[in-house]
Amino acid sequence: MFDKSTTFFSSIQATTGNPLPEKYAIDGPESIEQALEAAAAATLAFAQTTAKQRAHFLSQIASEIEARSRSILSQYQKESGLPEGRANGELQRTLGQIQHFVALLEAGRYIQATIHKTDTGPDLRKMLYPIGPIVVFGASNFPLAFSTAGGDTISALAAGCPVLVKAHPYHIGTSNLVAEAIAAAVHSCSLHPGVFAHLADTGHGLGQKLVQDPRVKGVGFTGSYAGGKALCELAQKRTEPIPVFAEMGSTNPMVVLQEKLQDGGADLAQAIADSVLLGNGQFCTNPGLIFTLGAPTAAFLEKLKSVFATAKVGVMVHPNIAQAYQEKLNALKGKYSELQLIQNEPNGPALGQIHATSFQKHLALSEEVFGPFTLLVVHDTPEQLAQSISKMEGQLTATLLGTAKDHQKFPQMQQLLLQKVGRLLFEGVPTGVAVTTAMQHGGPYPASSDSRFTAVGSDAILRWLRPVCYQDAPQENLPQALQDHNPLNIERNCNNLWTKDPL
Amino acid sequence: MFDKSTTFFSSIQATTGNPLPEKYAIDGPESIEQALEAAAAATLAFAQTTAKQRAHFLSQIASEIEARSRSILSQYQKESGLPEGRANGELQRTLGQIQHFVALLEAGRYIQATIHKTDTGPDLRKMLYPIGPIVVFGASNFPLAFSTAGGDTISALAAGCPVLVKAHPYHIGTSNLVAEAIAAAVHSCSLHPGVFAHLADTGHGLGQKLVQDPRVKGVGFTGSYAGGKALCELAQKRTEPIPVFAEMGSTNPMVVLQEKLQDGGADLAQAIADSVLLGNGQFCTNPGLIFTLGAPTAAFLEKLKSVFATAKVGVMVHPNIAQAYQEKLNALKGKYSELQLIQNEPNGPALGQIHATSFQKHLALSEEVFGPFTLLVVHDTPEQLAQSISKMEGQLTATLLGTAKDHQKFPQMQQLLLQKVGRLLFEGVPTGVAVTTAMQHGGPYPASSDSRFTAVGSDAILRWLRPVCYQDAPQENLPQALQDHNPLNIERNCNNLWTKDPL
Repeated sequence: MFDKSTTFFSSIQATTGNPLPEKYAIDGPESIEQALEAAAAATLAFAQTTAKQRAHFLSQIASEIEARSRSILSQYQKESGLPEGRANGELQRTLGQIQHFVALLEAGRYIQATIHKTDTGPDLRKMLYPIGPIVVFGASNFPLAFSTAGGDTISALAAGCPVLVKAHPYHIGTSNLVAEAIAAAVHSCSLHPGVFAHLADTGHGLGQKLVQDPRVKGVGFTGSYAGGKALCELAQKRTEPIPVFAEMGSTNPMVVLQEKLQDGGADLAQAIADSVLLGNGQFCTNPGLIFTLGAPTAAFLEKLKSVFATAKVGVMVHPNIAQAYQEKLNALKGKYSELQLIQNEPNGPALGQIHATSFQKHLALSEEVFGPFTLLVVHDTPEQLAQSISKMEGQLTATLLGTAKDHQKFPQMQQLLLQKVGRLLFEGVPTGVAVTTAMQHGGPYPASSDSRFTAVGSDAILRWLRPVCYQDAPQENLPQALQDHNPLNIERNCNNLWTKDPL
Repeated sequence: MFDKSTTFFSSIQATTGNPLPEKYAIDGPESIEQALEAAAAATLAFAQTTAKQRAHFLSQIASEIEARSRSILSQYQKESGLPEGRANGELQRTLGQIQHFVALLEAGRYIQATIHKTDTGPDLRKMLYPIGPIVVFGASNFPLAFSTAGGDTISALAAGCPVLVKAHPYHIGTSNLVAEAIAAAVHSCSLHPGVFAHLADTGHGLGQKLVQDPRVKGVGFTGSYAGGKALCELAQKRTEPIPVFAEMGSTNPMVVLQEKLQDGGADLAQAIADSVLLGNGQFCTNPGLIFTLGAPTAAFLEKLKSVFATAKVGVMVHPNIAQAYQEKLNALKGKYSELQLIQNEPNGPALGQIHATSFQKHLALSEEVFGPFTLLVVHDTPEQLAQSISKMEGQLTATLLGTAKDHQKFPQMQQLLLQKVGRLLFEGVPTGVAVTTAMQHGGPYPASSDSRFTAVGSDAILRWLRPVCYQDAPQENLPQALQDHNPLNIERNCNNLWTKDPL
């Protein structure tokens, strides 16, 4: 669809800040309209595919990505500046995530088939049904696992919803290669071509247009609070408002209780510092706040300080992100004289330290600084710590580190933290989000726009489904999942009992 | 909390239009603030009650309502104008609904305890957790079952969320009696008094104030599209947006296919008319549109017309509603000359008839006319019927009446209707919403504000819960539902297997 008016752009090589040679087209009104019309046209047929057909489709996507893995990994590293190990790790995570949804579809239980049939009253049978075309905005910090074939796209396709990806311009080349893989799978599975579209521009216009279009029925977004908020507002202003699942900023506080702080020493400090520095601080679960109950021991503090005092500048996924990081740090430094800051080099990792009294006066200090920064906040009393927790906004995670004695002594900390988070850790560090049935990646606003859903793990599929109930339907009008003899052999809730038995 | 500045109001006797003698206080800023502060103060303790404790609490509410049933029924009839049979039926439905949630809490499975524990990777355990204080707006058309102790209040209390009811001024007396019953149960169960509040005014100020207050975390609403939309917008404009579950208008089309239309005759017409006239047309599932494929037979049409040609004026729950009904009918009559209207008496039941060609030109005709009105739309061809369905907005229900041959011949009708509804019936009429595990009462916008949730049935509780995940938590830090030995003896998803076995 290139014509004379087509504009092209390049992504930036993260290590040099220079444009990469490959050029990519900015999609104009015609190709956007074509993609939307195709997605709408594909909706009904895609909703009627079986879970097994979609499982096969996802497996094909994985195969097509694997077949392109060498070029994907090379492009990924150029565009993100992230090292080979991380690139490969993220590719494996992306493939593993696809397999997770393949297994979910094959088990078939995700559809929540529920049958209530009694001698009196109507015959009611309910299951989940795809909501329609979904727009996915990839994240800059995970060019594979949270982007074109990331959790949002894969869970929406698994649900039976067509997907329109708004490619992230920071890794347009990687995105383009992955999109080719998905398009190849669409083709080899003989699905309607409108099941998947990949659209690009360098500004906000395309995304806004997609979210406002009446043919679009839901949105997945991973990124900044400002971006997520803007999309939520656009979606609410539509004639038909639609759900936006925005996974936004989070400071992921780690709370270290009294005895644990005494016991933890240098090892604990090292573990925390490693978590802050992982991926150069570009994880959405990066711990940006360390609350201690009591003054840190010398061993703990010295280790933490020494790590940051010698830390080197890492490459960030885009020069804009590196710049925003340092600007935000400078602003904090300029504004709050009580803040002690350790930073070895400009643009490099940084450690802040402040007393709880000052912290509570300046709650802007609890906002996310996206990058390798964390702020140590020292509390004198449990009451003071409880106050800091209570004043926090919603978070993806919090980590509560304590000995058994600590937990017994300060039970209120767990209860207060629970009000604020989607995931509460008692060991380890918050970076790392396992793709399992029990994961919750999403927390009270503003960590995510809807705390009742998760962006990672099996339940991520629930964002793209709504229940439909069939009342007194003849067997031949029921979808297979709800027919008496259970032809799909899936677990169903039949009159309050989960069973694979026929009715 | 009455002082010199307190204002009082009365409800209207529906049959006479005159104010009833009892006076009720309008809650001022102080009592509103007190209720909000108490709800916030009760949140943590109420979230920590066990499901069994809350089951007992709900049972107590039922007992307290039963103890007051004579005065409740008498007040209900005065305020709504609905007959004794309906009053008693709605009371029984309300009590039955409470028992449904008692059973749900006792089974304990609703909490969706999910454990993923492997030798590698973290120990992750997820369950649902209450979101916090909920504001409930009762519906004028169901002064018991969808009001003060209706599905929204009871499901929110079952979830462990404090509830603030904004009483409906049309049945303030009934609401007040029910609120006394709930307050008595709060007291006898020794719960924090902030668990429940009952607040009144005659305008929109109180409701707006409650929805905007940061201590409120969710909203349940049953009523008009305009009201629901306004609340959704308010909730989205907050610093922390919150979910609003608004069950709004719906025209609940009934689609009668070719052969069924020939076969149905007078009996089918009578069944449809009965559904339209039930409760004087004041059901949210009232069928306001009848789409026929082909011209109705003489037997069908004559019966339908004769019912409406002789139908008497019934009492509506409030003079304002009766007035709005007739005004809307008059407006349609004045605007669309193609519309044939049969109405025996002003303010009484009415039947409209129009050809599909005109209907599709004037889609305003598909909007809900709240009251005992339905519009018969005659279609010549399947294509024309498919168009009418495709042009419809989201609906709570649709009914697809056809013989086996009809369904075989026109399979697209079912698929098209599925896109638009939460519940699809194949027999009977849409009025009547059973409280079961498999019910879906909620459909694509604007039928309800969030089609992924239901306002009736077991899953109504899911509106007030969000998942929280515990990572690597010591046994003593886990809630009972997630402890290895399963002390609550509930069904849990353990490594993908639903079981009551300990881990």
